[in-house]
Amino acid sequence: MRAKIMPALLGAAMLIATSAQAAATPEDKAAAALLAGPKFAKAQASLKGDYERIIQDIITLTEIEAPPFKETARGKAYMAMLKAEGLTDVEMDEVGNVMGLRKGTGGGPLIVVTAHLDTVFPEGTNVKVRREGNGLYAPGIGDDTSSLPVQLAFIRAMNRAGYTTKADILFMGNVGEEGPGDLRGTRYLFSKGKYKDRIKSFISFEPGQPGRITNAGTGSRRYKVTFNGPGGHSMGDFGIVSPAFAMGNAIVAFGKLKAPAEPKTVYNVGIVEGGTSVNSIPFSTAMTIDMRSNGKAELDAEEKAFLSLLPGAVAEENAARSTAKGKISYEAKLVGDRPVGSTPMDARIIKVAGAVARASGFDPKYGAGSTDSNIPMSLGIEAVTLASGFETFRAHSLEEGMKMNSPEDLRNMGVGLATVLALAEAR
Amino acid sequence: MRAKIMPALLGAAMLIATSAQAAATPEDKAAAALLAGPKFAKAQASLKGDYERIIQDIITLTEIEAPPFKETARGKAYMAMLKAEGLTDVEMDEVGNVMGLRKGTGGGPLIVVTAHLDTVFPEGTNVKVRREGNGLYAPGIGDDTSSLPVQLAFIRAMNRAGYTTKADILFMGNVGEEGPGDLRGTRYLFSKGKYKDRIKSFISFEPGQPGRITNAGTGSRRYKVTFNGPGGHSMGDFGIVSPAFAMGNAIVAFGKLKAPAEPKTVYNVGIVEGGTSVNSIPFSTAMTIDMRSNGKAELDAEEKAFLSLLPGAVAEENAARSTAKGKISYEAKLVGDRPVGSTPMDARIIKVAGAVARASGFDPKYGAGSTDSNIPMSLGIEAVTLASGFETFRAHSLEEGMKMNSPEDLRNMGVGLATVLALAEAR
Repeated sequence: MRAKIMPALLGAAMLIATSAQAAATPEDKAAAALLAGPKFAKAQASLKGDYERIIQDIITLTEIEAPPFKETARGKAYMAMLKAEGLTDVEMDEVGNVMGLRKGTGGGPLIVVTAHLDTVFPEGTNVKVRREGNGLYAPGIGDDTSSLPVQLAFIRAMNRAGYTTKADILFMGNVGEEGPGDLRGTRYLFSKGKYKDRIKSFISFEPGQPGRITNAGTGSRRYKVTFNGPGGHSMGDFGIVSPAFAMGNAIVAFGKLKAPAEPKTVYNVGIVEGGTSVNSIPFSTAMTIDMRSNGKAELDAEEKAFLSLLPGAVAEENAARSTAKGKISYEAKLVGDRPVGSTPMDARIIKVAGAVARASGFDPKYGAGSTDSNIPMSLGIEAVTLASGFETFRAHSLEEGMKMNSPEDLRNMGVGLATVLALAEAR
Repeated sequence: MRAKIMPALLGAAMLIATSAQAAATPEDKAAAALLAGPKFAKAQASLKGDYERIIQDIITLTEIEAPPFKETARGKAYMAMLKAEGLTDVEMDEVGNVMGLRKGTGGGPLIVVTAHLDTVFPEGTNVKVRREGNGLYAPGIGDDTSSLPVQLAFIRAMNRAGYTTKADILFMGNVGEEGPGDLRGTRYLFSKGKYKDRIKSFISFEPGQPGRITNAGTGSRRYKVTFNGPGGHSMGDFGIVSPAFAMGNAIVAFGKLKAPAEPKTVYNVGIVEGGTSVNSIPFSTAMTIDMRSNGKAELDAEEKAFLSLLPGAVAEENAARSTAKGKISYEAKLVGDRPVGSTPMDARIIKVAGAVARASGFDPKYGAGSTDSNIPMSLGIEAVTLASGFETFRAHSLEEGMKMNSPEDLRNMGVGLATVLALAEAR
């Protein structure tokens, strides 16, 4: 998950359902009816009875490393869990997504409900979970490992409550959501996956504030720009061009770009690297940069501006020092490309998610993020990213963690479950 | 070796010894006598017979990685080779220098003859030697790996020719000559090593032009400058200051410094690093830079100019973006400090080296470098850095290589060997 979402600090007042006063639309009425029904009470009781099991599954999965491109071990473990819940057609696809079907009553659409398997942490990171008071700490535990067992609890709750749905629901743990993964799991699902032509709606679960509905996908373009030159000896070859100076020119020029505030558009030099020793003129330096925007035109314009400044930065260095041993050249490699997209406010998934949030006592907050939902959004398939339940913190840092506050957690999970049920036309 | 030395292109005319006409000093006469003696002919024959073995040893040692601070594996291999030549007191000292004594006839001084074990290349660099025509290619093969087996060939030549010397000769492979090593091997030898109070003369062998006598030590100051800032999320925190942009400003300003041509003064950005992920504003970036001069005053002035540009580079970034979450600060840490030094022209080692060069048909070229000799020079102990024999090229680059031109190579090696013999008062 790439959009910063503050942990919910819920007052007791918010725990009072306000469904009655907001029940204005057909979706609001349906949501209120669903939440008030006897089956949903059973489903909530199932979640409550499963609380310790959910925590245990989070610990189990967190302690199976899942670095970018290396999610297989965790994927296999999660696939076994999906199978144990009685799903059919359980499988791992070519890129490592794991999934299984909870079949509907027939003739309905296919809905994907997913959380991502991968974390940002490299192989060898200590992922042993530490418990301290009501906190659990380990890299990746919140984003997005905590969402995976919640999905399993949804399946059990649906089964125990005796829900049938019109839609087929594909429960999934997908690969490649984080940085370098570049949404490759969802990309595959929608471009080559066997269900690609059947998916009507898409929900991805991530940690987040209850009531948050991510209905827009921030687009991003990421480049690794490598500057190459002849390299040489700092004393003997002094005076020849250096990729370090060319990169310096590019960084300074990049830092002067003006980015529109609305739609929000940003840029960043994330990583700089290069050179072999203090007394060698580098033969290569590189920078990895990020550009993002909530507007497609603005992202395209920013990308164009960035790519246009590179030749000048390099030419300036080639003019400033000797090119007798070779010139500076550069290569800009696209290393990330997340499409801009959004789900319109009148899409059914938005109306249903908003109605369930309101019926559960939350004021829906719509916003943009950079998640697996970007892919279906960019393809015109309705999609949202919703909060899975737990309060988490310090995502992407070694101090990542989550809180165990069972009443709030269970209430938040109930919102997610109800949204899935409403969307799938459960009975 | 830090001074670039052009490979010799020797015309046939230069192959005619001109010792007779130049035999003006006692050292010239002694050199001419030594080169004309029957033992030296045997020594040269030994070098010639060893040529293929020298090449093989160069390949063997080159293919044992020796990154800065990680010379142990190569050091052990070279120590075994020193032992195999029959040296006594063969050992590895506390910092990793390996050495052995060829004892003199008694009552003589101690002379150190050394080449350095370390290369500039980091662990994991492909050091497999590639042969192409009469060229051998691999990172580090020239500087200074090619010198190590030449020293072994010297010992064998002395033994086979039946030379005894008045001086004890300590043959050595030393650590830490390159960049970050900051001459730590020689520093240790002269400050804590067991022979520290006995060393009268010091010769270090490096690749170089025959006739080249490095009798002055280029001084250097090296800094690792770290730029620190609040860091944050590339989207959520866009607009805050970034250490990457501050470093960009510093690199560009550094690249605009004017350095005097005489005494030669240079600067270099050797390594840039920083950032954790493409979508995080770095909390830290760093650059490691090199400044050198053959003049103490010029080096001091350059250092002052460099340190003076840093506050401006940081202030520019603090003015360009928001400091609401914290300002950019920087720390400039001195990571290398090589003393400027020289061996006076009337020192015996200079007179002997010059005489042998002349007697061998070369016009001695005196000059400055930044080598292990800087340390004894700065302590007032006579020292030179001499060419070990092979023509090498592209030192410190991944295209580093050496030529195999056996007549020239053997002649050049003979100059080094004769210098050692003359200095050690061989009979």
